[in-house]
Amino acid sequence: MGLEVAKAEQQREMTRLERMLCACRGQPTDRPPVWLMRQAGRYLPEYREIRARTSFLEMCRDPEIATEVSLQPYRRFGMDAVIVFSDILVPLTGLDLELTFQPGPRIENPIRSESDLDRLEGSVAEAMRPTCDALRALKTKLGNETPVIGFAGAPWTLAAYASEKKLSRDLAQLSTLSYRDPTLLDRMLERMAEITTEALRLQSEAGADVLQIFDTWAGMLSSERFQRFAGPALRRVLNALPTPRPPVIIFARGAGHLVDDLADLEPDVVSLDWRVDLEQVAGRIGQRVSLQGNLDPAALMAPAPEIARQVAQLIRAGRKARGHILNLGHGVLPTIPVEGVAAFVAAARDGAQTTP
Amino acid sequence: MGLEVAKAEQQREMTRLERMLCACRGQPTDRPPVWLMRQAGRYLPEYREIRARTSFLEMCRDPEIATEVSLQPYRRFGMDAVIVFSDILVPLTGLDLELTFQPGPRIENPIRSESDLDRLEGSVAEAMRPTCDALRALKTKLGNETPVIGFAGAPWTLAAYASEKKLSRDLAQLSTLSYRDPTLLDRMLERMAEITTEALRLQSEAGADVLQIFDTWAGMLSSERFQRFAGPALRRVLNALPTPRPPVIIFARGAGHLVDDLADLEPDVVSLDWRVDLEQVAGRIGQRVSLQGNLDPAALMAPAPEIARQVAQLIRAGRKARGHILNLGHGVLPTIPVEGVAAFVAAARDGAQTTP
Repeated sequence: MGLEVAKAEQQREMTRLERMLCACRGQPTDRPPVWLMRQAGRYLPEYREIRARTSFLEMCRDPEIATEVSLQPYRRFGMDAVIVFSDILVPLTGLDLELTFQPGPRIENPIRSESDLDRLEGSVAEAMRPTCDALRALKTKLGNETPVIGFAGAPWTLAAYASEKKLSRDLAQLSTLSYRDPTLLDRMLERMAEITTEALRLQSEAGADVLQIFDTWAGMLSSERFQRFAGPALRRVLNALPTPRPPVIIFARGAGHLVDDLADLEPDVVSLDWRVDLEQVAGRIGQRVSLQGNLDPAALMAPAPEIARQVAQLIRAGRKARGHILNLGHGVLPTIPVEGVAAFVAAARDGAQTTP
Repeated sequence: MGLEVAKAEQQREMTRLERMLCACRGQPTDRPPVWLMRQAGRYLPEYREIRARTSFLEMCRDPEIATEVSLQPYRRFGMDAVIVFSDILVPLTGLDLELTFQPGPRIENPIRSESDLDRLEGSVAEAMRPTCDALRALKTKLGNETPVIGFAGAPWTLAAYASEKKLSRDLAQLSTLSYRDPTLLDRMLERMAEITTEALRLQSEAGADVLQIFDTWAGMLSSERFQRFAGPALRRVLNALPTPRPPVIIFARGAGHLVDDLADLEPDVVSLDWRVDLEQVAGRIGQRVSLQGNLDPAALMAPAPEIARQVAQLIRAGRKARGHILNLGHGVLPTIPVEGVAAFVAAARDGAQTTP
């Protein structure tokens, strides 16, 4: 795009879809788009009302409820993207894993051996059907000017959950496996990469405009071990997605030490944990990938002017990257007041003009 | 110390105490000393035997048991230091906080207001008496050639526990306070700094040769917010300790992004999380402070030759710092085999000669 066209682009108000796609691809935008991880969640009274009479998994499995819940934050705040309501463990429910939420995930028959792995039969497509139905419904309802985000768990993170009855903070099972039987772990990660790929491919076919991969537990690994395990599994997913594909965002929690490794995988966007200095990282990898983030989720507890101040700081820092999507550095906390989210979205929308 | 003397020092076999003190202060040692965080713990059958008939808090509160449990790993493996068996929350038990372990800590009457804070009366000295008695017993039993380590929780980490009934992974209460009422948090941190200081001072008087401060939850903060809250509180502790004081080690979990901030506080040693690249950090801050760490705790699951390989790598990297203490990057996991710890200590003891 020539400089003149780029300038004109920046002046015209873009549609939400254009804004999001351009930010992902590092093309000029009128302002950074904004959405929030876990924006459909317990902090919303209208969400809690549904959740009071429906289990979490049932909510994921009912396309009408999933559609409604996905739209709730968009109706209130008008973010620049709607993420389909689901859970990263939903694809595993098609594979003879006895999964419950109580409220944290619990798997009665975790995978810890070759034979457990061989047992993993079933259909990801079947498990993902309600999510894909919800995605299609969202696309119909929203028209073509608002992007819908599909998502999946990264192979390493899926393996972390699949290998334990109840995930321990120190990832005991998976870490043990990585030192005792790395070959079995490799096989497990290959299998999980297939599942991640399938879940993303199905959502892309159902109309997802952007895909986000959550590697929630990658931050437990040193850079060296990320490059040995989680990284190659992610690369496998990126390579296996049919092209042309929607832009892909990768998020990893507590992974400030891995941002260069994540950029090396060449996703479209790296989503940063709140403890990372956005400006510093933008200077280092922001010309190779766009960046997403990274307000401290707890900052939404602050008074509105303080939220606006922090958003302005992020907008300034994000200009050092080829593209920037405003978001939190992790999901919305259930205890966050609705006003905090409103202040964040408003500051994102208005801040681009007023931020010097 | 002149170069000749330094060389001679390196050849003579040092006592454990000399080795530890010199490593902390950045003076030459015959080899890096080695100990493990949580070396007295559930991975040891002789520990589990006592624990089976005694609650965790009772074990901390009985000087004889605390002494015995502190000595268990030393008898088996002969590490270069014995850390007194206690818990960072023990000092709070003197202050009308109803604390139980089930097995994670739970506080029935958390501190969330000015009046809660004013209520915090009682005696840290009283609560710390069994720990100090155990320390004195250890010094008597071990003589003057083996160092005993005393420890305390950092103010930010103590505040995290004291403000919640049951600590949530996202530190919801403390984070909220930091955005809603930073002045109250400042007061809380001041009070906690007094408690940390008192706990360390008492242990120093009881004979502790080295003091370690655990800021387990500091890693939740960005550098900017560490400098606003946790950092000044730590500085207050370091300034308040009577001089001359034993060397101080600071450990913070998941705090790779804070190592420069930790070095700025000028402790004697910064203890590194396992995800940090020791060599890189040694190059950056290793001339200002000594470094401790930082094997992945899960690596003790690996076969002995792999453990030895990783220890050799750490020994090489640690030579770039003014001093290096071999340790894990976090506490020993309860599921670790005894053989893993044996292999780690053996590799540390023999590796200094054989590592090129």
